[in-house]
Parts: sequence; structure tokens; C-alpha cells
Amino acid sequence: MSDTQQLLDRTVDAIRPLDAESIRAAQARLDSLTKPPGSLGKLEDIVKQIAGITGELGADLSKRAVVVMAGDHGVCAEGVSAFPSEVTPQMVLNFLAGGAAVNVLARQAGADVVCVDVGVAAAIEHPSLVQRKVRPGTDNIAQGPAMSREEALAAIAVGIETASELAEQGYAMLATGEMGIGNTTPSAALCAALASMTAEDAVGLGTGIDASRRLHKVGVVERALTVNAPDASDPLGTLAKVGGLEIAALTGVILGAAASRLPVLIDGFISSAAALVASRIAPASAAYMIGSHLSQEQGHGQLLAAIGLSPMIHLDMRLGEGTGAVLGFHFVDAAQRIVREMATFESAGVSRG
Amino acid sequence: MSDTQQLLDRTVDAIRPLDAESIRAAQARLDSLTKPPGSLGKLEDIVKQIAGITGELGADLSKRAVVVMAGDHGVCAEGVSAFPSEVTPQMVLNFLAGGAAVNVLARQAGADVVCVDVGVAAAIEHPSLVQRKVRPGTDNIAQGPAMSREEALAAIAVGIETASELAEQGYAMLATGEMGIGNTTPSAALCAALASMTAEDAVGLGTGIDASRRLHKVGVVERALTVNAPDASDPLGTLAKVGGLEIAALTGVILGAAASRLPVLIDGFISSAAALVASRIAPASAAYMIGSHLSQEQGHGQLLAAIGLSPMIHLDMRLGEGTGAVLGFHFVDAAQRIVREMATFESAGVSRG
Repeated sequence: MSDTQQLLDRTVDAIRPLDAESIRAAQARLDSLTKPPGSLGKLEDIVKQIAGITGELGADLSKRAVVVMAGDHGVCAEGVSAFPSEVTPQMVLNFLAGGAAVNVLARQAGADVVCVDVGVAAAIEHPSLVQRKVRPGTDNIAQGPAMSREEALAAIAVGIETASELAEQGYAMLATGEMGIGNTTPSAALCAALASMTAEDAVGLGTGIDASRRLHKVGVVERALTVNAPDASDPLGTLAKVGGLEIAALTGVILGAAASRLPVLIDGFISSAAALVASRIAPASAAYMIGSHLSQEQGHGQLLAAIGLSPMIHLDMRLGEGTGAVLGFHFVDAAQRIVREMATFESAGVSRG
Repeated sequence: MSDTQQLLDRTVDAIRPLDAESIRAAQARLDSLTKPPGSLGKLEDIVKQIAGITGELGADLSKRAVVVMAGDHGVCAEGVSAFPSEVTPQMVLNFLAGGAAVNVLARQAGADVVCVDVGVAAAIEHPSLVQRKVRPGTDNIAQGPAMSREEALAAIAVGIETASELAEQGYAMLATGEMGIGNTTPSAALCAALASMTAEDAVGLGTGIDASRRLHKVGVVERALTVNAPDASDPLGTLAKVGGLEIAALTGVILGAAASRLPVLIDGFISSAAALVASRIAPASAAYMIGSHLSQEQGHGQLLAAIGLSPMIHLDMRLGEGTGAVLGFHFVDAAQRIVREMATFESAGVSRG
């Protein structure tokens, strides 16, 4: 068995259920606070989830990072995107210079941006770039597999190692982000292959194609499914056949975060496709995921439901990069503050009704 | 004409449309930034709205407050709430001590909490409480009008004056909040009277009543509408007949904010009922409102749509106080940072596709 397969197996084995006793303690604390029971909705769910993950109430999650995985896609040859592949390395340099939307929103949320080249087609030189290229872009999924099974494992390993290195450095919470022109196409193919969605449901307008190009994109996804015949009972093989390098790496980030008991905020459509693969490889990993926003990409709601996630943020965004996930950090912070700082019925002298 | 009617008329007259030139300049700036056009969704709408309100791009809105208006409701005699009226003054003291959910979330968002007694049934003494009681609670709307027209004008005046004093003190952005046991009932009556909603659509579970108590509450709202026969073409008269003192005061806060050219975040069901009244008294005020969250209160979505607002936050909260509105500050901050800090296609050397 390969080293990367062993790493994946070890990581999956290390993912444990949340701590039930900490969740019960969190519920008791929430019910003592000066508010009707359950009235803070999903913020209360987050309090319990974080308690179950960390084993403590109101844990300090201030050291956090968004991991932006970058890769290119052979399927761009089919004309599925509004932007050319050359934008992938240009945007990577923009992330490294701090000028992209995700950088701005990460600064607001006190998060570091960690940018990893796991599969950009061009060579990029920058001192802050994490160089972990598995191969320079995938092959065209409309004609054959995106990559080999071994390459998919290697990309997953990049994500696992990134997450565990961040955990070792004291990061307490992660978010997923990505850059890869064309990557809504393999993401839609993964939805169809692993979440029983039709290509028609799964394919959206990406970063801004028109309706006729979208119809063409539906056909490309259908061809990718026919040519590759992915098997839903083999999520790793499906990822290799119709996925992408940055998607595989994000699957690894999520599994690695769960194995290190770190909560991980899931961004939009592409990140959610990676989360879907993670949940199919290791169902226990879903308990470590926090849904952030509902993207404008039409299949995103159905995709999130397939993982069991419920989005908190409805901003009609369709940018990716991790922009929705880092906005989600504010709500995790809100939840943690609530449990740390709110008065109880007893302390405030408020009647319970 | 009374002083309070004159103040309302002057305030309505002072509300001007947003500045179209600033909105155009904001759109041009947004389209120069390294992202597909429109891909930041509602954050881009906020950038344009704030530009149109303030006349500048990326204005500093760091000094902000949530105004929590407190009042009691005679309709509590009908048994419409899960909590007794004595909780209103208890929670006011909790706000003043900094221990309620809105205090915690306001601290997170860098906002001050301004708490005003405009109609609590009990006397409350606290050095930080703004004492502006118009009367100690409303009358029971199931039996007659909540208050006189002159009292409604007086409560609106409290809100207008609060907003303009905050504007004079340099506050650049406001949020609405409220406390008043029983106040989802008059809010539902206002929805029915001014937004053509049925009592069945408008009445929800409030802070946590059960289904049979909800049916009773529907009947109470229907009785209030029959007994008072509010006229939708007279929003002020409708507010006096089936509204509440803190609701009227929030209507004043919103109108006063608009007259002072301050953006105002609208909280949940009760705040939105106040915003509905404001939009019926002065349609131009709606351009100064920013929708924050979608409450779990069942009529909230329809109410927001009647004002033309779209919620950004879906956390299934049902607490009021301003909790959703202060969470919305993070997204206004995100929007302002985007326009101030993101790189342009030119500066970052990114292709436009």
C-alpha cells in the first residue's frame, strides 16, 4: 500500500465522534442564559458543536486560517468558464500580495491566508506560496479521468499535511478556500456522481457564463460522467476521475482538520464538493464541518443538504476563494462570546417565564 | 398642529433620495476590483447603498450604536406571551448591566447599546437608562386602541430625537433593537393592517408559545383588527391603534436616521414592523434601511418583502433585542473593507476574462 493511502487511512481512523458530555454541558449552560431556550438558533448549535469538538465551553479559537488550494483544470479546453486558465496563477499572486477579496475578509476576521499550489498549470514563484504541486493541472474530464488514483491520494495528502501542520502551529479553526478557473465543472460532476444530482441541477453559471454556455457545460458534465463512469461507492476513485487537484486537497484539509479536532468552515460550491467527498470517505468528518454561506451557484443548496449542512449566510455571492467561509468566522466568534459572556437568569435576576 | 406632529413632518421632509452620482462611482470602483462583476452579491449592494447615503466611497462607519427601545403591552392580559410583563424591566436592567445577548454581540461588533424606556409599565432607575417614558405600557389592543394618536406621535418623537442626538455625537450607523414582552402580537397586527397579511400568516410562536396558544394569539390579533378597524392609508393612526410604544419609537429612530443620512440595520420581526410603518409614512426612508437577519418568526419573510428588504443572515434566531441587526454590522464592515482594500485588475495584473 502506498504512503499516501496509509496516511489517508490513518487520518480517517483518527476521526472520532464529538464529545457527548461536553455537548450536554453546553446545552445546560445555554439554557441558563437570559434568553428563551433555543432562541439563538444556529448560534446555539455552533456552541454545542464547538464544545463537542474541543471538549471545553467557549474555547479560544482566535488563531485561525483559511487554506486556499489552487489548481487548474484540463476541462477548460471545452470552454466552460468565463475566464481563461491564466487567471489562476494571476489570482494566486493576488492572494499572496493580499489584494483579493478573501484577503480583505480574512483580515477582517483575524484569519491568516495560507495559499498552496497543488496543481496550477503554470510555475509560480513567491516566498509565501506553499509549493506542493502534484501535477500542473488535471486532464480534460470530458475525455478521460482528471488524474490517476495515486495523484488524487497525493493531493489529499497535501491537504491532510497542511491541516495537521497548522494544528501543530496552534491554529484552532480552519476555513476552506480555492482558486481554479473551471472548477465548478468538476464540482458539478462530483455532485452528480456522489449526491445523486442531475447534471442539470448541479451545473450553474460559475463566475458568470450565460445561459447558452451553461447548457454546453451541462453537456460537458454529462460527457464526463459517461466517459468516466464513476462509482459512488468509491469516492476516492470518483474524485480521481471527475474531480480536481485543489478539490482533492481540500478534501484532505477537511479530513485532516477533523482528525486534529479542529472545526472547519466550508465555503461555497467547490469547497462543498470537497466536503461531500470527505463525508463519503469518512462520514464522521461531517461533525467537524460548519456550513457558512449559500452561494448563488444553483446546485449549492442541494449539495449542502446532501452533506447535512445548513448555510448561515445568504449574500448571493459566487466568488469562492473562501470568502463565505471567512465571513462565517464572525458567527463562530458570536457563538463563543455568547456562551462566555452572557448573564444567567440567576445572576441577572430575570424570571424564567 | 402639535410640536410632535411638526417634528415628524420636518423629519419626513428632510429625508432625501440617495446620491446617484456616488452610487455610479461605487459601481465603477466595484467593477475594477479583482473579481467577476457582481460576484460579491449583496455586499456590493451595500457598498453602493452606503456610498449613496454618505456621498463617499468606503466611509468610516466604526462609531455605531444599537438603540434598544423598551415598552410594555396591555394585550399581555390576553395571555399571548410565554413570559410575564415583569420580564421587560428585568431585561432592561440586564441590558444596562451588559449581560444580555445584544450586549455581547454589540461588543463583538464594536457597537454601543443605547437603552431607552419609552413605555415600560414599571419604573426603572439606572444612570445609563434614557428615561423617555410616554406612558407606562399600552392599553389592550384586543379591546380598543393601544394608545392615542398624540401618544404615538410622542413615542415617534422619542425615536427621532434619539437618532438625531446620536448623529450629532458622531455615530455613523445605527441598528434597531427592542424589548417588550408581548410585542410580536401588535407587530403581527401591523403586518395585517399595513402589509395585507392575514393574521394567520403574521402570527408566529414569539419567544416560544405552543401551537394552541398560537391559535389563541391569531384570534387576539383578529379581534384587535375588528375592534380598532385600522385604515392602511393612515399608518400613524394604525400604529396608535394596534402598535406599541417601542415600535413607534423605532419607527422614529428609522425616520430620524434617514433624515440624518445614517444607514440603519433592521433587526427581526418587531423592528421590521416598525420599519414597515416608517416606509408607509415616508417611502424614501426605505433606501436607508439594511435588512439583517431572517427571524424564525413565521411572518418575517413576508414582512421584509413588503418593505423591499432582503435578509443576509439565516440563523433561525427569535430573540429580538437587536441581536440580528448587530450581527449585520459585520457584513457592512465587510462591504466597506472590500471597496477600500481590494486590488484592481490593473494594480494586480489580473486578466479580465
